[in-house]
Amino acid sequence: MAVVNIKEIYNRVLKIFEKAGLAHEDAVVMADVLTDAQMKGITTHGYIRVKKYVDCIKSGGIKPAGELRIENEMPSWARVDGQGGLGIVIANKAADIAIQKAKETGVGIVNVYNSHHLGPAGYYAAKCADAGMLGMVMSNGDVLVAATGSREKTIGNNPFAYAVPAGKYDKILYDVAMSMGSDMKIIQMEQEGKQVPNGWMLDAKGSPSNNPSDYMAGGVLLPFGGYKGYGLALMVETFAAVLSGAAVTQNVHAWNSTPGTSGNVGHFIMALDIAKMCDVNEYIKRTESIIDEIKSSEKAEGADGIFYPGEKEQIAKNACLLAGTVEVVDSVMELIKTAEASF
Amino acid sequence: MAVVNIKEIYNRVLKIFEKAGLAHEDAVVMADVLTDAQMKGITTHGYIRVKKYVDCIKSGGIKPAGELRIENEMPSWARVDGQGGLGIVIANKAADIAIQKAKETGVGIVNVYNSHHLGPAGYYAAKCADAGMLGMVMSNGDVLVAATGSREKTIGNNPFAYAVPAGKYDKILYDVAMSMGSDMKIIQMEQEGKQVPNGWMLDAKGSPSNNPSDYMAGGVLLPFGGYKGYGLALMVETFAAVLSGAAVTQNVHAWNSTPGTSGNVGHFIMALDIAKMCDVNEYIKRTESIIDEIKSSEKAEGADGIFYPGEKEQIAKNACLLAGTVEVVDSVMELIKTAEASF
Repeated sequence: MAVVNIKEIYNRVLKIFEKAGLAHEDAVVMADVLTDAQMKGITTHGYIRVKKYVDCIKSGGIKPAGELRIENEMPSWARVDGQGGLGIVIANKAADIAIQKAKETGVGIVNVYNSHHLGPAGYYAAKCADAGMLGMVMSNGDVLVAATGSREKTIGNNPFAYAVPAGKYDKILYDVAMSMGSDMKIIQMEQEGKQVPNGWMLDAKGSPSNNPSDYMAGGVLLPFGGYKGYGLALMVETFAAVLSGAAVTQNVHAWNSTPGTSGNVGHFIMALDIAKMCDVNEYIKRTESIIDEIKSSEKAEGADGIFYPGEKEQIAKNACLLAGTVEVVDSVMELIKTAEASF
Repeated sequence: MAVVNIKEIYNRVLKIFEKAGLAHEDAVVMADVLTDAQMKGITTHGYIRVKKYVDCIKSGGIKPAGELRIENEMPSWARVDGQGGLGIVIANKAADIAIQKAKETGVGIVNVYNSHHLGPAGYYAAKCADAGMLGMVMSNGDVLVAATGSREKTIGNNPFAYAVPAGKYDKILYDVAMSMGSDMKIIQMEQEGKQVPNGWMLDAKGSPSNNPSDYMAGGVLLPFGGYKGYGLALMVETFAAVLSGAAVTQNVHAWNSTPGTSGNVGHFIMALDIAKMCDVNEYIKRTESIIDEIKSSEKAEGADGIFYPGEKEQIAKNACLLAGTVEVVDSVMELIKTAEASF
């Protein structure tokens, strides 16, 4: 584990993406988003992704240009073509359009197709909240999760995020995928000789299993909350991908295993301007009071605290900012070096 | 268990609400919504509610007038005052406004305050789908669920629903509450001497419990999927209630235990017009293909089938329509008789 100066690693990541052909402002967004995730401890969406994104650009699966093309629009929505760009760059620009439309009309919805893996969906929802808006973000992805009753990978582990301003608590920031636990965590459990918790996966025969090796041998992730999570995954698929004209389910390429192929992923980004709809101070007071209530309630046995969504991640980020450093595991530092040496 | 002629029971329910002071067209909506839920087997939101709604009207907690007042609006959204009316009547009219706005601008969002329990949230989402739109519905409610880490009732068991047109499959219709299982099911398990499944509840001390009696003795429901369900409950609270100006969390009155008090519940209803945004035939073909894929995948061990959200309920409803009858338990028939005799 390395403890790295944030400014230094940020600039290294930024330069990597500039060398990969991104415009400076797009490389800044890549460095911002990945550093934010890394500081928040969302390491699956942090620096570990740098080399993979670069590989995709080099092999032509992802275009470094990062320009949106508006396909059709009205005052409160737009459908845009991501033109095969990096999901992070495209989603960030789509969020800007949603926020602008919401400023003008109260509501801004941007539906994107022909994009890619957008990294941490919460980043773009947080952007809406920072602009004084309610934000909601969905994106589809390659199939990883079993529909309820199925033993096959039938639906993406589709990210869903929302964020709302919360006054003294800054914001509520919720960012989840549709599986009970992630494939990356199962791989880690296998390496550490641990058992997979109940309800996380089925083996290749479609029976529940706690053995992480069963996942690699044709197993499948289960949705969180059973059919309730399955139905949400399907919502994300329809709102983000069917409506936008992106690839759906089996037609979405796994971006990190087929770097030379365009993924044609879809996003749904919605911003609602609080100031247009109601009294902002009243809104903030009410949101704060809910969090006050929840945080001051009696703790369950064994609970380490009662947190609002995004709070733990913000605490981790603040600690990094205070120290000026962020932790990065050695294998990821190696990936960054390899990416740097590849130009 | 009685097997009742649908037309007869429908008309009895309709007349009850007319006698309670509703306009004919509002009483029709009440009968439609409750009969739809009853036929679909969603009996918790079916005829069992008739007498409770009537009690609330009689004791002044709910107004029978059922007129919305638009507080403020723009072409793609409106914030409306439900004026203390029946949630079902109010939500149905709010959905009409959302659909009208979506027809004109692609997007229609209606945020409601001063309403009440809206019954099955999926009904209004389905209305959007039947109009060729994507629909999303949220509503808050009185606190019933523990925030993750808490052992107290800190957040509502807030309904969330969406529906999308699905061609030959009619529509995908998802309608859930935020708890793993409902309090009504736990009460039933106690009566039948059954154990509550893992992950459903905490006892009064905040420890996991499988004993249904612990629920009545100060226990609390747990959210589905742990913190993932807790965060969704908080989303519904902010989108449906904080933004609209409705009562939130501890300030929402439990409508069925305090019939004389206005609940001031909030709703969020969104309609997106597919025809405005993309090619409808293409949209339908793609949605059908997803369902085709999922339904034809290999079944998990012990699964009775692979269903899309709302399919089982639609099968149950179709069987009722074919037979012309619907099942109603005796105790609910008694409640209907009592309601009829009360005028």
